[in-house]
Amino acid sequence: MAEYRYIQFSVEADIGHLQLNRPEKKNAINDALLLEIEDVFINMPEEVSAVLFSGNGPEFCSGLDLSEHVARDPYGVVLHSRMWHRVFGRIANSPIPVVAALHGAVIGGGMELASCAHVRVADETTYFRLPEGRHGIFVGGGASVRVGSILGSSRMMDMMLTGRTYDAVDGERLGLAHYCVEPGTALEKATELAKSIAQNSRLSNYAMVTGLSRIESMSMDDGLFTESLLAGMTQTSSEVQERIQGFLNRKKK
Amino acid sequence: MAEYRYIQFSVEADIGHLQLNRPEKKNAINDALLLEIEDVFINMPEEVSAVLFSGNGPEFCSGLDLSEHVARDPYGVVLHSRMWHRVFGRIANSPIPVVAALHGAVIGGGMELASCAHVRVADETTYFRLPEGRHGIFVGGGASVRVGSILGSSRMMDMMLTGRTYDAVDGERLGLAHYCVEPGTALEKATELAKSIAQNSRLSNYAMVTGLSRIESMSMDDGLFTESLLAGMTQTSSEVQERIQGFLNRKKK
Amino acid sequence: MAEYRYIQFSVEADIGHLQLNRPEKKNAINDALLLEIEDVFINMPEEVSAVLFSGNGPEFCSGLDLSEHVARDPYGVVLHSRMWHRVFGRIANSPIPVVAALHGAVIGGGMELASCAHVRVADETTYFRLPEGRHGIFVGGGASVRVGSILGSSRMMDMMLTGRTYDAVDGERLGLAHYCVEPGTALEKATELAKSIAQNSRLSNYAMVTGLSRIESMSMDDGLFTESLLAGMTQTSSEVQERIQGFLNRKKK
Amino acid sequence: MAEYRYIQFSVEADIGHLQLNRPEKKNAINDALLLEIEDVFINMPEEVSAVLFSGNGPEFCSGLDLSEHVARDPYGVVLHSRMWHRVFGRIANSPIPVVAALHGAVIGGGMELASCAHVRVADETTYFRLPEGRHGIFVGGGASVRVGSILGSSRMMDMMLTGRTYDAVDGERLGLAHYCVEPGTALEKATELAKSIAQNSRLSNYAMVTGLSRIESMSMDDGLFTESLLAGMTQTSSEVQERIQGFLNRKKK
Amino acid sequence: MAEYRYIQFSVEADIGHLQLNRPEKKNAINDALLLEIEDVFINMPEEVSAVLFSGNGPEFCSGLDLSEHVARDPYGVVLHSRMWHRVFGRIANSPIPVVAALHGAVIGGGMELASCAHVRVADETTYFRLPEGRHGIFVGGGASVRVGSILGSSRMMDMMLTGRTYDAVDGERLGLAHYCVEPGTALEKATELAKSIAQNSRLSNYAMVTGLSRIESMSMDDGLFTESLLAGMTQTSSEVQERIQGFLNRKKK
Amino acid sequence: MAEYRYIQFSVEADIGHLQLNRPEKKNAINDALLLEIEDVFINMPEEVSAVLFSGNGPEFCSGLDLSEHVARDPYGVVLHSRMWHRVFGRIANSPIPVVAALHGAVIGGGMELASCAHVRVADETTYFRLPEGRHGIFVGGGASVRVGSILGSSRMMDMMLTGRTYDAVDGERLGLAHYCVEPGTALEKATELAKSIAQNSRLSNYAMVTGLSRIESMSMDDGLFTESLLAGMTQTSSEVQERIQGFLNRKKK
Repeated sequence: MAEYRYIQFSVEADIGHLQLNRPEKKNAINDALLLEIEDVFINMPEEVSAVLFSGNGPEFCSGLDLSEHVARDPYGVVLHSRMWHRVFGRIANSPIPVVAALHGAVIGGGMELASCAHVRVADETTYFRLPEGRHGIFVGGGASVRVGSILGSSRMMDMMLTGRTYDAVDGERLGLAHYCVEPGTALEKATELAKSIAQNSRLSNYAMVTGLSRIESMSMDDGLFTESLLAGMTQTSSEVQERIQGFLNRKKK
Repeated sequence: MAEYRYIQFSVEADIGHLQLNRPEKKNAINDALLLEIEDVFINMPEEVSAVLFSGNGPEFCSGLDLSEHVARDPYGVVLHSRMWHRVFGRIANSPIPVVAALHGAVIGGGMELASCAHVRVADETTYFRLPEGRHGIFVGGGASVRVGSILGSSRMMDMMLTGRTYDAVDGERLGLAHYCVEPGTALEKATELAKSIAQNSRLSNYAMVTGLSRIESMSMDDGLFTESLLAGMTQTSSEVQERIQGFLNRKKK
Repeated sequence: MAEYRYIQFSVEADIGHLQLNRPEKKNAINDALLLEIEDVFINMPEEVSAVLFSGNGPEFCSGLDLSEHVARDPYGVVLHSRMWHRVFGRIANSPIPVVAALHGAVIGGGMELASCAHVRVADETTYFRLPEGRHGIFVGGGASVRVGSILGSSRMMDMMLTGRTYDAVDGERLGLAHYCVEPGTALEKATELAKSIAQNSRLSNYAMVTGLSRIESMSMDDGLFTESLLAGMTQTSSEVQERIQGFLNRKKK
Repeated sequence: MAEYRYIQFSVEADIGHLQLNRPEKKNAINDALLLEIEDVFINMPEEVSAVLFSGNGPEFCSGLDLSEHVARDPYGVVLHSRMWHRVFGRIANSPIPVVAALHGAVIGGGMELASCAHVRVADETTYFRLPEGRHGIFVGGGASVRVGSILGSSRMMDMMLTGRTYDAVDGERLGLAHYCVEPGTALEKATELAKSIAQNSRLSNYAMVTGLSRIESMSMDDGLFTESLLAGMTQTSSEVQERIQGFLNRKKK
Repeated sequence: MAEYRYIQFSVEADIGHLQLNRPEKKNAINDALLLEIEDVFINMPEEVSAVLFSGNGPEFCSGLDLSEHVARDPYGVVLHSRMWHRVFGRIANSPIPVVAALHGAVIGGGMELASCAHVRVADETTYFRLPEGRHGIFVGGGASVRVGSILGSSRMMDMMLTGRTYDAVDGERLGLAHYCVEPGTALEKATELAKSIAQNSRLSNYAMVTGLSRIESMSMDDGLFTESLLAGMTQTSSEVQERIQGFLNRKKK
Repeated sequence: MAEYRYIQFSVEADIGHLQLNRPEKKNAINDALLLEIEDVFINMPEEVSAVLFSGNGPEFCSGLDLSEHVARDPYGVVLHSRMWHRVFGRIANSPIPVVAALHGAVIGGGMELASCAHVRVADETTYFRLPEGRHGIFVGGGASVRVGSILGSSRMMDMMLTGRTYDAVDGERLGLAHYCVEPGTALEKATELAKSIAQNSRLSNYAMVTGLSRIESMSMDDGLFTESLLAGMTQTSSEVQERIQGFLNRKKK
């Protein structure tokens, strides 16, 4: 396993665990940290069936470290933002499900990171904020797409224009998190979910994490067609017959 | 009225009532049941202005009966899924509004069926689940499109990956149902709504059930254009003048 | 400042305030009122950085005054609806954020108007209704697009088919309002938000109010590309460097 | 084989042949003729692998017979047009490729019919026209979508606004036909193509006739994803291994 | 009729004629010229049924006058480009068909202007070029959308990257013009077409110039739905019955 | 410069040249060759401003070597196709323009490769074919998207269903190539174009090669918005002022 400076990555059984590990900076994101995340996903061990994502220290992630902010010309900003998109796309488009455990600050780039996970567990200390608009800039790591898709553009606009904070309960209500749990228990719950998801068939998990968001962006008619193709791809493995037989046997008992 | 094996269909005044009638199997769906539903919609009596959808017995519908699961090659699975799409499209694209009364299990194919209705009433015993991903397969009757459109792809992904259950209260909160009522009263409430909807103009109902989901999938600009055309189609019938005059008269009193 | 018959418009510091001012008719919308709104937005004073929208009297806006309803042929209806779209588009596509203060009736065309604002504050007396389908007509001022985008087409269909009313608490829950406040305090809260938003950089505000809804309607990949361009546009002004430096200085203290 | 009044349908080996057979009316389309076409596609014999489409007499099809034009209210026109869409969709979305042999007039509804075929052969007597705009109406059988997709909306607009005629050579150049052949030889060429296409694998033909137009309407990224699914569906049949082995053997000789 | 500095506008019978009139500058576009065009379309006389567009002097339009180029910050460039879009949208979205007569240079902004017309006639002296990419900038008056829609993005990319010139014959072949005529006869041919188009029903013309490009950008299924609505809008005027009867009478003779 | 087995890559001045170098196999594509292409684009030297793409030997590229065809299950086929998409995306989405010189066979995967280039020069020996459908499979390297976007889905369907061959002249006419030149001169012409393109500003080239195809896939309204952002990004570099001044100076002479 590679040694990283800003993150830690470990594997236990078929579950990988990627932890942001820059607690003294509230896990603020810099380019080096991003490239370490990319490296993990490029070299993901074959045996890993689900990935946990968490943050070491009192905050999940406070976003881009503004103290490292570099003045760039417009083209430089575009290329930099595209690099963030490339890395975050590695997470969101991973063939393996990613489960995030959130707590404390989930701010700016931290929200962009969290929104790439397929399942999000927030403990009650979690709070969400997109302060970019207040600093005179705009998001550049995918928030307008991924957070926008969760909240809808109307709520997203209010959130960014006013810089308001949503707490964990609101976060669960609005879909920023799928589960809201007691303080300090997010990782435990996320681990339990990851283990459960890892027991799904690899092929089904692939269909769910890659297919559902694509189908959402298609026209209804094309989405139905694609659903049929995904059904065709998943239902013909021998594993399926066994799983269904197993289910029927359990039901009979 | 035709005699059916797996469903019942009756008409009272201008309200049709299609009831899944396979209680011993929790109204599990097989191909024959689907073709009976299609037959009802193809031969819908002219006088029917709104359709009720319900399930006989303790559950609304437990989805595809896995005990009837047939192993198919990918092409066979695709064609089979397209057949489900064709039948479910008959409901969702019906020119006449469909109101579903839900209770107990609304699982898998049962959720796909329910999501084709234009209005959904759930009593408090209702619970929703999409277990396909847990069985190693994928949905194939439109859930990725119709349930996905209600929940958003992010919540949909969590629901399918983890196989979690949402109860009736959550269902109403997330839009899986539009109304949550006391146990045993879903059909009563649905009937009341269907009767009320049946009193709308036929043309308005057509515009609402066919137009709104299409406009949602268009670009904003094209959606506005289409809205204007629908307004043009509805506002010129003589019936409209009478309805508006009636409304103004009632207001004056 | 121009004199208007159906509305009032005033400017205080960098905040404009457009008030519907036809209280004896519950601020019902007619074409003359619409053209007055358009006139305000065409001639918006340069110094205005945010606009407040409110209604004088006991109701925010009861929608189209049906007593002024004119029978038109389909082409006439289409052209009339397109005129509403043109005026409402002035609000929704304004380069300057618009904050609406809602109370009492927000019905039909009033909901269409409110949904053009970028931030909506509702006091607890507010209620929302789209009765067009009950009158035998269809919406024509953008509700199928803008309210549909907030509620999703499934909830929108139920709301229009049944003519149901949502109160302020439900309205906040469903996104019809972003804030629900005590009776009589909507304008106060909206003013506070507008002042805060006016302190954002003009460029950031432009990116947020024009970019976020466009990105929502693009494919994910194109949306990310556009986000990068907006980031490039905003992050290169000298103002940004000052804002970020100011933030870092405040943090240090 | 059913007996029809306005068309003929015959099967030879694995090729079906549907011929418009109303030569005294230049094969003008009425509703009865449409329903006969639908009947053919609903009851397509299993052994048919490709379908020929042609017109008996001196013209392929002169479009809607205006002498049967019925005055309808807007809703009636919409429902009537939707019926045409349903029938024409049967052709365009057929799982089996359709090859049209064109000659003489291909006008209005005749162009709409021809544009549903997957391959079009025109002899040099063929000419194309969309006169609807000149009669004060609009197309209603899919021309704005299917002919528009071939010509692009800019050329389509000129063609409809001016009522201009394109001959067979222009037709081939613009994509209205894929082949332009000597007078009287269109059916011969179409038959040859249909026989050749019928020798493709059924599954490949399904992927091509259903997939390519859907992929065109998706975002680039979603289109690529769907292409991969179609590749996955087709490449795993045992038939493929035999075909590829056969190809390699032929190459070696 | 208003007096203009950079253009001329005249009306004869039901045909308007807008002529670029800055021959000493090859009809180069500046902001004042654009605002004059907008003024014509805002105040289009009711009796005008079709509009001619032409250029006075040896060239149709050589595009943006670079000698008037003003250095702007990114936000300023965006707002300026949006102003061009607003004016050009007036032409392209006009409810009345616009026919352009082209000759000589049709370069940059001149191509953007020409591509807003619904029908384009080019004489053989016409040549097309998009030199923006060669000057280190990008188009900003809609070429990437409107010329891109005609040429396809692949041909558009080559044209802009290499700055190549297409002559009139190529222009017709690629759709940049719908007609290629002898030198000096473009206006004559365009006038003939405009007069012919003006004899269509106003409603049909509206449906064609507003509907066809929208339908092109919709999914196939939504496009068909919208086609039906446009058919419903046009086919119910009493004028249609007369036109169809007239056509049938002429045919009988 | 890295040493490759199946390709060659060299740099002269600011032009890179990637040549397929497997002439004994007609430059057939295997996975190792693809990964070499990817390696070139990942490690593209900073000084390269445009890339040439060509094939060594008598053919440009005969596509996937079927003799290396490996039987895979559906999931394996999908993942393999996605790998091709990743590599081909490197070319098509390159920030630097790619010019392809084509000759001889451009078949299957070879067409997919060629269609990733931004400019294509074909000499008269070139011929194009997509034989996948004839072998019982489907394309999997992007042809349905990139070739489909050039030809339109209707011509694409005929080409794949019938396996027909287009020669160089037809190829230019249909957009498969942008230039058709004498036998043996494609590389010379492509080099000339690449050198010319390399003299454009880097920023303009980026806007053209990344922006134009995205704008094509957006709604008209969103496309215009994005065009304005690209204009804003390009027009503010100091280089632009110099280029425009240079152009004006040249014109004066």
